[in-house]
Amino acid sequence: MGSFSAEAFPTIALDEAAGELVLVDQTLLPNEKKLLRLSKQEDIWEALHTLRVRGAPAIGVTAALAMALAARDIETEDYSVFEKRFNEAADYLASSRPTAVNLFWALDRMRGVTAAHRGEAVARAKALLLEEAKKIREEDIAVCKAIGENALTLVRKGDGLLTHCNAGRLATVEYGTATAVMYLGHERDYGFRIYCDETRPLLQGARLTAFELSEAGMRPTVLCDNMSASLLETGAVNAVFTGCDRVAANGDSANKIGTQLLALAAKRYGVPFYICAPTSTIDMKAASGADIPIEQRKPEEVTEMWYERRMAPEGVSAYNPAFDVTPADLITAIVTEHGVLRPPYTQSISGLGL
Amino acid sequence: MGSFSAEAFPTIALDEAAGELVLVDQTLLPNEKKLLRLSKQEDIWEALHTLRVRGAPAIGVTAALAMALAARDIETEDYSVFEKRFNEAADYLASSRPTAVNLFWALDRMRGVTAAHRGEAVARAKALLLEEAKKIREEDIAVCKAIGENALTLVRKGDGLLTHCNAGRLATVEYGTATAVMYLGHERDYGFRIYCDETRPLLQGARLTAFELSEAGMRPTVLCDNMSASLLETGAVNAVFTGCDRVAANGDSANKIGTQLLALAAKRYGVPFYICAPTSTIDMKAASGADIPIEQRKPEEVTEMWYERRMAPEGVSAYNPAFDVTPADLITAIVTEHGVLRPPYTQSISGLGL
Repeated sequence: MGSFSAEAFPTIALDEAAGELVLVDQTLLPNEKKLLRLSKQEDIWEALHTLRVRGAPAIGVTAALAMALAARDIETEDYSVFEKRFNEAADYLASSRPTAVNLFWALDRMRGVTAAHRGEAVARAKALLLEEAKKIREEDIAVCKAIGENALTLVRKGDGLLTHCNAGRLATVEYGTATAVMYLGHERDYGFRIYCDETRPLLQGARLTAFELSEAGMRPTVLCDNMSASLLETGAVNAVFTGCDRVAANGDSANKIGTQLLALAAKRYGVPFYICAPTSTIDMKAASGADIPIEQRKPEEVTEMWYERRMAPEGVSAYNPAFDVTPADLITAIVTEHGVLRPPYTQSISGLGL
Repeated sequence: MGSFSAEAFPTIALDEAAGELVLVDQTLLPNEKKLLRLSKQEDIWEALHTLRVRGAPAIGVTAALAMALAARDIETEDYSVFEKRFNEAADYLASSRPTAVNLFWALDRMRGVTAAHRGEAVARAKALLLEEAKKIREEDIAVCKAIGENALTLVRKGDGLLTHCNAGRLATVEYGTATAVMYLGHERDYGFRIYCDETRPLLQGARLTAFELSEAGMRPTVLCDNMSASLLETGAVNAVFTGCDRVAANGDSANKIGTQLLALAAKRYGVPFYICAPTSTIDMKAASGADIPIEQRKPEEVTEMWYERRMAPEGVSAYNPAFDVTPADLITAIVTEHGVLRPPYTQSISGLGL
């Protein structure tokens, strides 16, 4: 298989002619590059459930496109029957990742289209749903690109940039959030030196971020998560960029486990620490990080390496939170599509008028 | 195979009747418990070289016992021939781990015995060498136990204790350094809750520390290295104990990569951070951490999981330092066999009169 560039293989695309959703199977990376072409809802459900597609924005876009396909396949001219079946299909898809906020957000936005056009022709609703799904996808690309442009104002040519986990194009449609600055800088010959935390337990940094940046022609260096302070101490890194899952109203930011430890190291060595956040991830209902629930995941992710071989003895417990919260005082700035937010975050975030 | 307790299977023992060194093969843990019985120098060399026995104190003790066996096998009554062959055997063993400071320390101590008894009978030198090797082994046990007793004054019953890497009995003969407090507390029903960082890239925490503590009847919880700040934030940990490879005269302490990051998290959350150090690891010739060289290891340890399957794409680099230096300001105290050293370390360390 040849090039795996974003042009050749976007993370998520719709093949309208074939009526198929085209996805990169992320569970096989970096060892195998396989594109999935899915049209049945059961197959899309399975792809979401087993993390063949993952990353909050990518999940949302996948769900939206899946609902456009679901609508197309409902054979009725009766709008109320159509809407009932459409909502059943949405409920089914929602059950694939019951804690994924973006999944619900995208499904609700699609449900809103069917609700807004009651009394019109089913065919028109189907066309509008396809339009809405494509719009959600295009918006995701535009938001990531804007985050990248804003982040680019914070760095200089030749800088060393470090990221954690995968907030890359594989978690979105193109550019990624934390990686957008790297892609744009690469296009413009900024000559960045790129470092990727491997990100235990599931190694998204080593498997996905290092992979996608390599495919784009960058030459990333991978490090174990526990090596970040040692690397920052050498002065090789000029800025840290990570994504985030949810930002509280005071700037506390939940992201992949290990992010706050990296932020502590950045603070110690005077390296700016930037959270890249589409404004859709800012949750004004969460006053601080204490209001953000943290998912605990299966111990086997830690104690068994890829479920093939035990790395810890039988019978030991494992602590395995999926996320941690980086306290706002460790965050130099939050980079959004609408600009760079600076402390005090309570003010800069409320200034967005969300 | 049944119990793997320290009594049943010490990390390193000498079977005098059989003339064999008895070692736990640590490369197979935790999946297989195998004891090696070695008498040939070639086999002991291989066990050191391939890390079947590892950990600075354990390497030193192994080398000392190996030299007692080597001396026994030299068939001559001519002392100068004996000493020449003895030194050749020591040179050979030294080549198994050319950067292991404790290996050279133990070999030099054994060479000192042969040098001190020139003109005496070869048989007497052989007996004295055996005595010296057994003494080195007993001293190691006593030092670890004393460190444990001193550490025990720093904690309370029911405390949560976290450690990094393996500074356990598998790195020594018994008790370990950082784990001595856990073993002694376990014997005395302190009811500690024990946490082990898995310690990438080679997972000594998950594979060795969690294993040996489980075998002793403790119920450790394993976490990925990037989860320590998240765990400390919960208040579950009352003290962190780690071993160390070298302590500089100002208290800066080199230990397994990730230690300084853990110390940063401990500082942030007000958890005491203790370095456990036999005074033999204090290097008065190193004024500060800047004088301690850091070994860079093979990238494959990071990019390939156990050399069986790639975790990062072909062609990416890896940053893979074996150690980092925890700056003295992050260390609450240094626990030695002679007592607990407090800041300012330049004073408390020089007070040892090393």
